[in-house]
Amino acid sequence: MSTPEASFTTAALKAFRQNLDRADKFFTDLSADQLEARVAPGKNRLIYLWGHLAAVNDAMLPLLGIGERLHPEFDSIFLKSPDGTAADVPSAVELSLAWKAINEKLLSDMEALAPAEWLERHTSVSEEDFAKEPHRNRFAILLSRTSHIAYHMGQAVLAPK
Amino acid sequence: MSTPEASFTTAALKAFRQNLDRADKFFTDLSADQLEARVAPGKNRLIYLWGHLAAVNDAMLPLLGIGERLHPEFDSIFLKSPDGTAADVPSAVELSLAWKAINEKLLSDMEALAPAEWLERHTSVSEEDFAKEPHRNRFAILLSRTSHIAYHMGQAVLAPK
Repeated sequence: MSTPEASFTTAALKAFRQNLDRADKFFTDLSADQLEARVAPGKNRLIYLWGHLAAVNDAMLPLLGIGERLHPEFDSIFLKSPDGTAADVPSAVELSLAWKAINEKLLSDMEALAPAEWLERHTSVSEEDFAKEPHRNRFAILLSRTSHIAYHMGQAVLAPK
Repeated sequence: MSTPEASFTTAALKAFRQNLDRADKFFTDLSADQLEARVAPGKNRLIYLWGHLAAVNDAMLPLLGIGERLHPEFDSIFLKSPDGTAADVPSAVELSLAWKAINEKLLSDMEALAPAEWLERHTSVSEEDFAKEPHRNRFAILLSRTSHIAYHMGQAVLAPK
């Protein structure tokens, strides 16, 4: 029998993984040409959304305090620059490999956290602030990143096939 | 001090409410004309997405076993029919009022649930099946409905202004 605490964290991890699996299946099935499609006229290309999700997942490693980033160079391309403005955009193959490596590490490191550790602070809040705002914990990050994947997958499925 | 269990349910309720607030602010600020915009060429109109989210929230009341539906008539319009095919589509004003009433009831009834009650079965799983699959609980519904709102809000923001 799992504890009630573990039931909550297991459910939230499952929800994250379900959204991630949906993204994984969607993006990795597309050709480099198909990844050039835009979700709507004048909006982001699919390859940009994919890189954006990869960068955000990668950034969860230090934010949750569970590991070093694998691809910090993605930030300037997929977080700090709008689509189409960055140089050195990875190819579809490179992005696919990075995506796979990031998610494997992230999922395995997150699975290793005990329920009580999910209620500990994340690294972008100081110990002082966390004492006053204990809701700024790892669990809140997990929930917000789950919604973030869903948000962009809602967009991705709109791209013309 | 709240219990660890309450920390998890409070965080998940907060994530749901944040997504709902985003939808609320987005849709209720739009005119009836603006609600006719499509999220992408040939895709759903904003008014349809709004009604869809209202119907899904309304359906959470019996699914969570916390209340009767306020607008069961929304299902045939916003869940079972694609956009543009149903008769008797409510006006923007009617939808806005229904949306408000549904969410007020839903949020207040959900706030009243104790952490342990979130781990109880939802009403679309039988007691027998729940004994084998205890993850099919109210908490899983809350998480999936949070992602569902985010998914459609990702689409809604793409509509031309």
